[in-house]
Amino acid sequence: MRVSDPPGAGDGTSRRTARTRVRRNPGRASHALEDIHAVLDAGLLCHVGYQLDQGPVVTPTAYWREGNRVYWHGSAASQMLKHQSMRMPVCLTVSHFDGLVMARSAFHHSVNYRSVMIFGTSEPVSDAQEKLRQLALFMERIAPGRWDQVRQPTTRELRLTSLMSLPLDEAVLKSRSGPPVDDVADYELDVWAGVLPVTTRAGRPVDDPALAAGVAPPRGLRSLKTN
Amino acid sequence: MRVSDPPGAGDGTSRRTARTRVRRNPGRASHALEDIHAVLDAGLLCHVGYQLDQGPVVTPTAYWREGNRVYWHGSAASQMLKHQSMRMPVCLTVSHFDGLVMARSAFHHSVNYRSVMIFGTSEPVSDAQEKLRQLALFMERIAPGRWDQVRQPTTRELRLTSLMSLPLDEAVLKSRSGPPVDDVADYELDVWAGVLPVTTRAGRPVDDPALAAGVAPPRGLRSLKTN
Repeated sequence: MRVSDPPGAGDGTSRRTARTRVRRNPGRASHALEDIHAVLDAGLLCHVGYQLDQGPVVTPTAYWREGNRVYWHGSAASQMLKHQSMRMPVCLTVSHFDGLVMARSAFHHSVNYRSVMIFGTSEPVSDAQEKLRQLALFMERIAPGRWDQVRQPTTRELRLTSLMSLPLDEAVLKSRSGPPVDDVADYELDVWAGVLPVTTRAGRPVDDPALAAGVAPPRGLRSLKTN
Repeated sequence: MRVSDPPGAGDGTSRRTARTRVRRNPGRASHALEDIHAVLDAGLLCHVGYQLDQGPVVTPTAYWREGNRVYWHGSAASQMLKHQSMRMPVCLTVSHFDGLVMARSAFHHSVNYRSVMIFGTSEPVSDAQEKLRQLALFMERIAPGRWDQVRQPTTRELRLTSLMSLPLDEAVLKSRSGPPVDDVADYELDVWAGVLPVTTRAGRPVDDPALAAGVAPPRGLRSLKTN
């Protein structure tokens, strides 16, 4: 880290840059890696934005984290991953929608949420051993122990899978929580105000209709944290 | 519609263009506006992507639909809305995460989802009456009848609110549903396979601690569809 660099990963925070500096409601933002990790680890689906000649594209995809990096993957035939394999600027955003904030005035209605935006250049991971290790980490995140039960990827399947990575060097967390904040005079109004909480949860596992008799779902699957 | 145009809104579908044509798994795609409406109407939070000099940005925000248009809004002071007020290319993506698809092989694990990507140029709505009408529509979507109960926006508040719109001219739905599809030989394996469903639901309304005694939450709030 150069002396002139703003605070970054070396002190447990992500870098403050023009695009991670929060101008409005700065109390709702954090650059602390510990906070950023917590929001990332509470999700499975992110949105990756990148620019094509025709304009911006935002694609939903699964992701996971190891240390100060996020990873996402997919078919090597996917248009998104073909482009990102060339190393391109991306923004990877993870958002948890926690509730609707219902105020006494229309104007002060809001949303409770936690989101992390990560800016950087997509980095393809091409080493087969590292790809295998990362895919195992991803499965471990979803269902601990399952990697050793399923048929593992063949050399061909690994080749057909593109793996992408992005460091948390330039990332920012934004969030809102708690009750509505109304104008003082509006607290007199006779209208309900509060929060409608929204949660995302895993339900009861549904067997594949082709499942052999007597094979039970892995324990702990329902407790998967997703938000 | 010019004779040379590909099928578009005139026949109940969105346009097939280079970026809405689905190359892989085309069976999982639809351009039918009826299908696109259903996915949009099941959600409240979208991700809007746009390009700045420094690179792409993906911002989560609330949205709603009227006819063949989506709308989103926020503080006129927001960086995103300042940029988008200048009419810029955007991609607005709505994604519902429906479940984890767990196959017998690592390779065939997948995600059940529904998503709509809408491409186009952001269109600011500046007419005060139309802004009011759209904000009322948004609230009606969340809590029918509430618009007439809350304090409605003042002229100043309306001015502080930016409203953006995007037509569904160039949109595509992609989805996956159902059980895993494994390689034939893998069906012999003694490993659980199936779907872990994931749902997003509204919970019990939480009163604002400052709520006056005896004011009850509106009926039907918990049944809000979010996914």
